[in-house]
Amino acid sequence: MSETATTHPLLEQHRDTLEEAARALRERSYYSRYPESPSPRVYGETAPQDGQDAHERSLNASYSALADQPSTGREVGSEVSPYGPTLGVRYPELDVDAAMDAALAAMPAWRDAGAEVRAAVCTEIVDRINARSHQMAHAVMHTSGQPFVMSFQAGGPHAQDRALEAVVAALEEQSRIPASVVWEKPAKGGPIRMQKDYRVVPRGVALVIGCNTFPTWNAYPGIFASLATGNPVVVKPHPRAVLPLALTVATAREVLLEAGFDPALVQLAAEDDGGTLAKDLALHPAVKIIDYTGGPGFGAWLEAEAGKAGKLVYTEKAGLNSVVVDSTDDLKGLLGNLAFSFSLYSGQMCTAPQNVYVPATGVDTDEGHLGADEFGQHLAEALSRFTADDARAVEILGATVNDDVRGRATDVPALAERLGGEVLLDSRAVTHPHYPDAVVRTPALVATDAGNEVAYTQECFGPVAFLVRTADTTESLRRFAETVREHGGMTASVYSTDEQVLEDAREAAVEAGVALSENLTGQIFVNQTAAFSDLHGTGANPAANAAYADTAFVANRFRVITSRRHV
Amino acid sequence: MSETATTHPLLEQHRDTLEEAARALRERSYYSRYPESPSPRVYGETAPQDGQDAHERSLNASYSALADQPSTGREVGSEVSPYGPTLGVRYPELDVDAAMDAALAAMPAWRDAGAEVRAAVCTEIVDRINARSHQMAHAVMHTSGQPFVMSFQAGGPHAQDRALEAVVAALEEQSRIPASVVWEKPAKGGPIRMQKDYRVVPRGVALVIGCNTFPTWNAYPGIFASLATGNPVVVKPHPRAVLPLALTVATAREVLLEAGFDPALVQLAAEDDGGTLAKDLALHPAVKIIDYTGGPGFGAWLEAEAGKAGKLVYTEKAGLNSVVVDSTDDLKGLLGNLAFSFSLYSGQMCTAPQNVYVPATGVDTDEGHLGADEFGQHLAEALSRFTADDARAVEILGATVNDDVRGRATDVPALAERLGGEVLLDSRAVTHPHYPDAVVRTPALVATDAGNEVAYTQECFGPVAFLVRTADTTESLRRFAETVREHGGMTASVYSTDEQVLEDAREAAVEAGVALSENLTGQIFVNQTAAFSDLHGTGANPAANAAYADTAFVANRFRVITSRRHV
Repeated sequence: MSETATTHPLLEQHRDTLEEAARALRERSYYSRYPESPSPRVYGETAPQDGQDAHERSLNASYSALADQPSTGREVGSEVSPYGPTLGVRYPELDVDAAMDAALAAMPAWRDAGAEVRAAVCTEIVDRINARSHQMAHAVMHTSGQPFVMSFQAGGPHAQDRALEAVVAALEEQSRIPASVVWEKPAKGGPIRMQKDYRVVPRGVALVIGCNTFPTWNAYPGIFASLATGNPVVVKPHPRAVLPLALTVATAREVLLEAGFDPALVQLAAEDDGGTLAKDLALHPAVKIIDYTGGPGFGAWLEAEAGKAGKLVYTEKAGLNSVVVDSTDDLKGLLGNLAFSFSLYSGQMCTAPQNVYVPATGVDTDEGHLGADEFGQHLAEALSRFTADDARAVEILGATVNDDVRGRATDVPALAERLGGEVLLDSRAVTHPHYPDAVVRTPALVATDAGNEVAYTQECFGPVAFLVRTADTTESLRRFAETVREHGGMTASVYSTDEQVLEDAREAAVEAGVALSENLTGQIFVNQTAAFSDLHGTGANPAANAAYADTAFVANRFRVITSRRHV
Repeated sequence: MSETATTHPLLEQHRDTLEEAARALRERSYYSRYPESPSPRVYGETAPQDGQDAHERSLNASYSALADQPSTGREVGSEVSPYGPTLGVRYPELDVDAAMDAALAAMPAWRDAGAEVRAAVCTEIVDRINARSHQMAHAVMHTSGQPFVMSFQAGGPHAQDRALEAVVAALEEQSRIPASVVWEKPAKGGPIRMQKDYRVVPRGVALVIGCNTFPTWNAYPGIFASLATGNPVVVKPHPRAVLPLALTVATAREVLLEAGFDPALVQLAAEDDGGTLAKDLALHPAVKIIDYTGGPGFGAWLEAEAGKAGKLVYTEKAGLNSVVVDSTDDLKGLLGNLAFSFSLYSGQMCTAPQNVYVPATGVDTDEGHLGADEFGQHLAEALSRFTADDARAVEILGATVNDDVRGRATDVPALAERLGGEVLLDSRAVTHPHYPDAVVRTPALVATDAGNEVAYTQECFGPVAFLVRTADTTESLRRFAETVREHGGMTASVYSTDEQVLEDAREAAVEAGVALSENLTGQIFVNQTAAFSDLHGTGANPAANAAYADTAFVANRFRVITSRRHV
């Protein structure tokens, strides 16, 4: 353990936090360091305005906070808000080879600082990002199209909690390796004694490839798991969601410098829309770890090609999130909960439900028995009601993020016809009161029979859900397990008043390799997971090969090098 | 936790062992459950004879203990002892699809038994294997060509200790997941409470591909890590080293059956020499985890192709094990230690040293300053002396395992000429007093300059070592780090009386990603690692992508599936 390791001022400052968070992670109990309410009472009276001002200052300007990165001298940036405005932020283009050299040069001091100092510095980075949560909310909103409060929560405190979770998971794992041990083997003529020193060493440069819809939430676990285990990180944001990660990287570099480390430990690799930088970076020989969130095409390429080159690849891609409806004693709660889950951010969450399996024999409810079609009508009405008021709806729906999503939502009858389904509820265009250029769409509901697999066995990202009519709940569970096992799934939920059905659903979830939520009728939604308690993804089905944040997510990001000698 | 999990009789029986072993693993302190001495005083007066009798009964016969495996009805087996005799054991050929079905059918009960019961059953399997250590020694000796005592130790108790290490590492990791937790989030109107249940689930069938030289030692970590995490295992032995793994699998099946589980959890897939079964099994859709020890060609294929198919692949391949000689205060100890390390099993260990870097400026020793060539002479003499007596030499050297090794050892002058080196010591043919057909060769020593990289930058498996003359120790350390980083290495050692050189060597080892032994002059050898304390491999250089047995070796073999509900 070096001198630095025991005396760094941030160590004392964050010791309690790290201990509390570690305990929560071990127990998987409730823990949140970063308040999810954007209220001025929590973040300070001037925080909302300060955040907005800071955001606006960053628009239509060069991003000077990253001017000290190794650069080609060119600027890049082609972000357009899903709400309409062009952001006009110009980022320095990274000189990749120089950046890799800088990252590798920064690594030894960071490695030798030890796991505890790294965890403390990472915590300080997350704290400092938290202080900028209002600014971040604007950046996330105007790159992802999320509504404001969600941008604040998911892009801010919830992402920050996931970051701290990764830091703590990494620290726990590194702390399990003793620094040194005296090993004593009994032998004739007296014991053989050896001192063995164990050094935690990083793998090399870690690449984190961000996505358009959750630029921070999905990038933080990889960034902080790699950084906390000693690896320098190059962050490659989605070309349409650079700003939130630029703010993240700039903050990290600021803290690293203040803490006595080289800011080259965290660098941003921005590019214009349509570039191939992610591929180039992934194959760069200095890169040893890759975290990716995004479409399955590039994800599969990374797993194959970068994996072949000996790099560790952690991916989150896409899947078929499923709801099995068998029966309920709270129909209103069920419908309200599902309406929210489908509507939130227009279904543009990797965790948003897509396929609702309903038995043709119908659903027993506290409001009487409903046929499958009746249930469909109820769900369609609940969706309509929930999104009826434009001004309130936009605060849930946000804006559609890209033309792909818009294309599917704009002509649902054509989509349904092509897929052989019936439109139970069409998507409605909502006019945003403040952003007339935003394309805002309410969720559509398309019904189909379970035999028509083509309709519902591909991810239909965005505001279209499917009501899948099965023969009975047994078929529902079988279809659910089969489709998720084959095509992947990030979430699943079941509604039933029958304990045996719930037990069968748990078995089906195990079979599918997906986490299950049961009878959600209140303020917990299937699309949301809590850091420190819920794993995000399982790594057990094709949707993701890893989970935020279990041991497997952190343990292979560092290696242990032993030196031994007689004493 | 199921009923089984808390009441299984093996739980109580092995509780103390598992606790002790877990403590040792956490502390990385000395621990061994299985005595390494083959003495009748340890294993019982009749054990040696009983073991030999049992071995002899298995020769020239159908291997009936595996007759209950799903079989094609054909028999396979083409083992010939490196000591000469044909073994004549005929193994039932596995019906692969039926075997995979059987394995998957056996999985749920094994999964639901829970981690503790699995660990206890695995411990019982290892104990039962231990009781057959004398029989195993003969099986290992007559497939690998190891000398008898080494066959007993490395093939028996040392392998068994590594097996228990994997069991305990897997148990520790699974035990970190609570079975259930009540999560309580503060909220307006009272806390939101959810019960969350976490289930440890296996990935699927695990394939373990064994090697010729260490059939048990290199296969046990994978077998037991996968089995202890709930995965059924198909063991694919090297076609020339089936018997030790047949005995292992038969024992495992016996214990599983007695313990109330399906023996299909462990199956043997033997084949004749020259088959492609490993490839076919690796690509079988039921197989989700692969452990491999063997040549780098097939290892790289597995990493690329099976990795691409989404399987977890753990490999140990080959490397350039290095010794850096700078100075010593115990020349005699150094020479004796190196002579043993080179001679043991004729250098046919993945951990045997190959390249000895010596500075042209010479080596300071307690017997005066030696020029590089003088040092080479001393080392050559030490090797000659150590292997001078045929009857004693064979007990260290064993027999050469295959024609590839024999080819290199038989005409060292031609090899040296081709590589541009000078023969300091030729390999000598040793006549085995009991096995006249065994090809036994003493280690050769070839000298070359560091500039002649072609000579020493490929693995030269078997009894040929290289003395590499460098300008100085700085170059030695640089060459060592560079060659290992590029070509891989399982072990490294350094000799120096200078604390700064040792510190530089530790840095070079970190750079190379290989474990370092310093100044070994006694009864610890660089080729040997101790379970529970030394990691075997690091996963940080091309020689191996994993280490026996760290957390990363076990944590990804199972996944966690959550179910949550309001309470």
